[in-house]
Amino acid sequence: MRLAARPSGEVKPSDWEPADAEVPEPGEGEFAGRTLAISLDPAMRGWLDDRPSYVPPVGLGEVMRAGSVVEVTASRHPDYAVGDHVTGLFGVQTHVVSGGRGTLKVDLDRAPAATWLGALGLTGMTAYFGLLDVGALAEGETVVVSGAAGAVGTIVGQIARIKGCRVVGIAGGPEKCAMLVDELGFDAAIDYRAQDVRRALRPEVGDGIDVYFDNVGGEILDAALANLRRGARVVICGAISQYNSATGVKGPSNYLSLLVNRARMEGFVVFDYAKRYGEAAAEIAGWIADGSLTTREHVVQGTVDDFPDTLQMLFRGENVGKLVLELV
Amino acid sequence: MRLAARPSGEVKPSDWEPADAEVPEPGEGEFAGRTLAISLDPAMRGWLDDRPSYVPPVGLGEVMRAGSVVEVTASRHPDYAVGDHVTGLFGVQTHVVSGGRGTLKVDLDRAPAATWLGALGLTGMTAYFGLLDVGALAEGETVVVSGAAGAVGTIVGQIARIKGCRVVGIAGGPEKCAMLVDELGFDAAIDYRAQDVRRALRPEVGDGIDVYFDNVGGEILDAALANLRRGARVVICGAISQYNSATGVKGPSNYLSLLVNRARMEGFVVFDYAKRYGEAAAEIAGWIADGSLTTREHVVQGTVDDFPDTLQMLFRGENVGKLVLELV
Repeated sequence: MRLAARPSGEVKPSDWEPADAEVPEPGEGEFAGRTLAISLDPAMRGWLDDRPSYVPPVGLGEVMRAGSVVEVTASRHPDYAVGDHVTGLFGVQTHVVSGGRGTLKVDLDRAPAATWLGALGLTGMTAYFGLLDVGALAEGETVVVSGAAGAVGTIVGQIARIKGCRVVGIAGGPEKCAMLVDELGFDAAIDYRAQDVRRALRPEVGDGIDVYFDNVGGEILDAALANLRRGARVVICGAISQYNSATGVKGPSNYLSLLVNRARMEGFVVFDYAKRYGEAAAEIAGWIADGSLTTREHVVQGTVDDFPDTLQMLFRGENVGKLVLELV
Repeated sequence: MRLAARPSGEVKPSDWEPADAEVPEPGEGEFAGRTLAISLDPAMRGWLDDRPSYVPPVGLGEVMRAGSVVEVTASRHPDYAVGDHVTGLFGVQTHVVSGGRGTLKVDLDRAPAATWLGALGLTGMTAYFGLLDVGALAEGETVVVSGAAGAVGTIVGQIARIKGCRVVGIAGGPEKCAMLVDELGFDAAIDYRAQDVRRALRPEVGDGIDVYFDNVGGEILDAALANLRRGARVVICGAISQYNSATGVKGPSNYLSLLVNRARMEGFVVFDYAKRYGEAAAEIAGWIADGSLTTREHVVQGTVDDFPDTLQMLFRGENVGKLVLELV
């Protein structure tokens, strides 16, 4: 998929056009691969806007940026052999060529492709560094995470639980909320579609929130700000409720809670932690292996042509856990 | 002055009623004093609202909370003698009685009462700890301060200059802007009434703002957020543009700049630094003595009955530097 037009508000089918179907040959020092699975991430919406950000926008006519897992089909690179599996930002296309920079070989016998894009990929890194490093989580604290049933949220909540914290998730719908508590071990879950989040949080957070991990922005961010404890950390990971807004972002009107509570709100970009990915992946893999962390993947089977529709699932809240398009 | 009614939006004359005129006698372990000068602060507006904050709201019928300088007129306390001058949160009244807790003896031969309420008082402490501690200012950084011609702003900008930083002030009107540059040594000043602050900041801040010290909130906070440098610190000291809003606070729509720029926004309350006031006051006094810091006080002479009108000057931007009501 290539970006055909810059979307305003929600992304439309006409904003995309198919990429070339040709199968490329690797040059010297390159390998060629066939895409097995593509990661779908809320941050993708931001990459479509033509404005300065932490990465350049996807150019008009360019292949859409995306993380994926590929199988090497031909190689003129000494480190990659046919049959190897590799993750990287290879884009939304069936066949790729790469010089290997920024890629990582993965073992699909240890974990499926979706997990390498999820808990063991950038999703897991985002949860890990956002919560522990930016959020400076301490044992026994009270953590609230929004988008709790999403890719990052499911991992944030479980890491907080593993660290001995009380964890409250905010998600949409009774099924997601039940899953958080019954299957992932959250202490409580709030259904933002059915409940007044600000009021529902109050009895769940005791003396207030120590770390609020925000994936959604908007009214839910305000509800969390209204329930901070003194010295709280608000981690700004994303704002999925705002990305499709054509009328502008709603700023958090309760931001003066930062003053009253001597609290801080801080943003981060996971790429800054690249040198420490190994450390995080090893710890997360250990938690998966000993059963303390459950991975949740939502795998859609299809072709690259299904990318636009699958992406929209994120903004409609239709996924549970990591959303992945598996090419069949 | 006592609070007669809780204001909605701008404070009205009918929200106040006179306090008793009686001259109280000190009890055992107390002293009595006559008020010489009263501090007027934007934060006072917040103290009038009946909602949880960093201090309890002023109760209906209670004497308005305010810092002041008094002269001891009678004493049954061993540490205070008739003729001593003392600062403390004595309230908006002509005569006070105190047990001495939370007070500080001051020497009016060293500095006038207005300076003890300003640069050497909570105003100076707020600027000092907000900029250096919360803002974690480093030498050579770029600092922007809003409400720059106000009590805290004039000191923040000068401390930043003393610390070898580039300083840009945002203030209302050409006179204030000229004063900041010509008299206080700011590198540049932006007149928010005449200029598009977001655009005007761009050429003045080079690679972006390292520390933004916010006293005003609203559109100016958003303009600063749009000009952050990577790793920036946004210090939330106040939001004078929002305090009188009866329709609710405008949240900063550009808060996602915190994510893009890996920046943080942090609030603070000066009272938390009480144990370090001495350290700050000593350093500020040194800067005043060696001429590197110029104090700016706006002294209105009148009676306690002039408190309501004088307070409104803050919200109309009519003061330059520390606003003080001197009782005559």
